[in-house]
Amino acid sequence: MTASLQTPRTTVKRLPTRGAYDRATVEAIVDEALICHVGFVVEGQPVVIPTIHWRSGDELYFHGSTASRMLRSLKNGIDVCVTITLLDGLVMARSAFHHSMNYRSVVVMGTAREVTDPAERLAALDALVEHVCAGRSKDVRPPNERELVQTLVLALPITEASAKIRTGGPVDDEEDYELSHWAGVIPLRLTALPGEPDERLGEGIETPAYAREYRRPMNS
Amino acid sequence: MTASLQTPRTTVKRLPTRGAYDRATVEAIVDEALICHVGFVVEGQPVVIPTIHWRSGDELYFHGSTASRMLRSLKNGIDVCVTITLLDGLVMARSAFHHSMNYRSVVVMGTAREVTDPAERLAALDALVEHVCAGRSKDVRPPNERELVQTLVLALPITEASAKIRTGGPVDDEEDYELSHWAGVIPLRLTALPGEPDERLGEGIETPAYAREYRRPMNS
Repeated sequence: MTASLQTPRTTVKRLPTRGAYDRATVEAIVDEALICHVGFVVEGQPVVIPTIHWRSGDELYFHGSTASRMLRSLKNGIDVCVTITLLDGLVMARSAFHHSMNYRSVVVMGTAREVTDPAERLAALDALVEHVCAGRSKDVRPPNERELVQTLVLALPITEASAKIRTGGPVDDEEDYELSHWAGVIPLRLTALPGEPDERLGEGIETPAYAREYRRPMNS
Repeated sequence: MTASLQTPRTTVKRLPTRGAYDRATVEAIVDEALICHVGFVVEGQPVVIPTIHWRSGDELYFHGSTASRMLRSLKNGIDVCVTITLLDGLVMARSAFHHSMNYRSVVVMGTAREVTDPAERLAALDALVEHVCAGRSKDVRPPNERELVQTLVLALPITEASAKIRTGGPVDDEEDYELSHWAGVIPLRLTALPGEPDERLGEGIETPAYAREYRRPMNS
């Protein structure tokens, strides 16, 4: 039995039946998404920055330059709210009012820690490359010392979180079902086109399968 | 000549050459995206909520139930940071370090106003439907009085904003170009599958073109 990630501040208030608090649900959304939006407070004002994230075990990671204002703020242990959203479809009801979207989102709250151990940081950066593209970490030049010094890695424990999910078709008012407007769902997908080789790619280097037919989630 | 939307707090600090502050660039990103992430501060803590947005003139709109905690907070004029991100591609360099993403993002800061005028609110909700799907607002039952009373509409002036954009292929260190790792860009697109009719759709109601072949941006 997985422990719940629900706390008062991660409890879904609007449409609470759409909320979920089990780790498997939260992790599946985190693992599929390529970016998150990180919210924090700077001198009383909210700031929301998009960035790439990944997961390793029970923690959500993000990284960037040691020159990043966001990361320097967060490594000092300030509160953070990380939100991840996957769009799955447009829900078209017969009434404008009941239009909706199908989506899967996650909110994680807490404070991040800086990953300082060199081996842990290297493993985390490998996990980032694998999160984006399984198999790729063995097909790149790994980070060198100079690059590692420039890279700040932060880990946020996924202990206080919620998922919110809407699926299925439109739900109209009963009397609206006789209207002649089209109703249904337009599914949305983040899809990849075939990888485009760099113009300076060496002769004879073939485009690997992971770039020819990239897809998310990686394991589907 | 368009006025700049740049202010000290919307100035891009990391990689400033990626920043843009002209209204046309900001509006094109706002108009293509289906969702935004709204950041605000509740009792000192950051909260980031995904929601649908749309634009009308110089203002960014969002809406929801009058029961929404977020909207009730925002209508009281607290500071908000709205961030919109479009993912365009995975940039695969020869080194792990130079991996990147192609993206277009916008940050808008300010305080929202509640749209209280009934005609303005109705026009705004029409604009929302059109933002999601051009032509759809004429093919739905419009909101009735009871629905309008339940709907809170907020408008945030787009006067303090920035766009941040990365395009193009990987940029590797010069000595890495001789490595045999594949490098290039995997383009990402938000694509739609053909609309799936609701199971209770009346007989003879055809799936309209906007649902058969939905695409974003709407005007491409």
